Amino acid sequence: MSDTLQKPLRKGEQTRVSILDAALAMASRDGLEGLTIGTLADRMGMSKSGVFAHFGSREDLQIAVIKRYHHQFEQDVFFPSMSEPRGLPRLQSLYTRWVERVGREIASGCIYISGAVEYDDRPGPIRDQLVDMVGTWQQSLLRATKQAVTEGHLKPDTDAPQLVFEMYGLVLALHHDARFIRNPGAVERARAGFARLMASARS
Amino acid sequence: MSDTLQKPLRKGEQTRVSILDAALAMASRDGLEGLTIGTLADRMGMSKSGVFAHFGSREDLQIAVIKRYHHQFEQDVFFPSMSEPRGLPRLQSLYTRWVERVGREIASGCIYISGAVEYDDRPGPIRDQLVDMVGTWQQSLLRATKQAVTEGHLKPDTDAPQLVFEMYGLVLALHHDARFIRNPGAVERARAGFARLMASARS
Repeated sequence: MSDTLQKPLRKGEQTRVSILDAALAMASRDGLEGLTIGTLADRMGMSKSGVFAHFGSREDLQIAVIKRYHHQFEQDVFFPSMSEPRGLPRLQSLYTRWVERVGREIASGCIYISGAVEYDDRPGPIRDQLVDMVGTWQQSLLRATKQAVTEGHLKPDTDAPQLVFEMYGLVLALHHDARFIRNPGAVERARAGFARLMASARS
Repeated sequence: MSDTLQKPLRKGEQTRVSILDAALAMASRDGLEGLTIGTLADRMGMSKSGVFAHFGSREDLQIAVIKRYHHQFEQDVFFPSMSEPRGLPRLQSLYTRWVERVGREIASGCIYISGAVEYDDRPGPIRDQLVDMVGTWQQSLLRATKQAVTEGHLKPDTDAPQLVFEMYGLVLALHHDARFIRNPGAVERARAGFARLMASARS
């Protein structure tokens, strides 16, 4: 067992994580802009100053929420896929776990996807943090796609950024059709789209 | 020249359209929820009661903005495509004009796409109106895709709803990458994705 697992969280750290999880749940439902220290304090049965003791400002809290979401995303999607062999198996694992996660999030919404619309026109540190996290994820997909070409699993002339663009589109369509239109079967469509995409790129 | 073109708009109707266009510009930038009668009146140099004389409530105004957007979308994308031959030419025209329109809207944003995220979790008449308009558009794409199958331009076993799902995803990815990530070349990627999609479905 690693040190991290053995060491219990200090009381202050535990409270911080509880506040963050409540904030993440609120932000998923109402958007990051819907997050206020007042409502959060009410929900936690804390005073506003109690919340401010952990997060210096509303903006600090919003950024911490994005980082927390990114951490969970990595644990769920990115790290488990890294133990798959380089190339198509790893790319397939990244996509499959991503679609599973967005499928589970249909009731609450994905911070990356809703944040992209919320902040596309709103410059500042929150937008920068979001773009940074989404950019990191797109780069991971791009790297895995390029490795699938290097490993000979995908055709040598594969346009890797184009493939990542299309994968992203499939997941955006899943989020759109399942959450907004409430069409059933969007998860299966996102899977079928990826299968077709890979079939056309496979060497 | 038709009657509609010859007949000048009455003064009241002109004012209503001017208010609507200003409201649409505001809603494209700040979201439909960002639209308030007060800010709109300020921008128009009118009193709040002057705006209320044309739209009974904020909600009526929001719904009128969605209908105005839908009207413009139809004029730009839908009606010109209807003069193309049934089948692939018409489907291609619908998609091409749609991508052109979203490409032009990058600076302001698309009400359908941002509204989908803004209202995915917010029930009520505005959400209903948006779902209705987006659903109408998806049905038009579906009908054109099915006609392309009937005309023998696409394979008989084409999964038309799957194709529409993927087209929608390409346009969502265009909006996401161009407006949020600010990646160049998103319009070209949306076009390349459609070309690949059609190539795989063509008979």
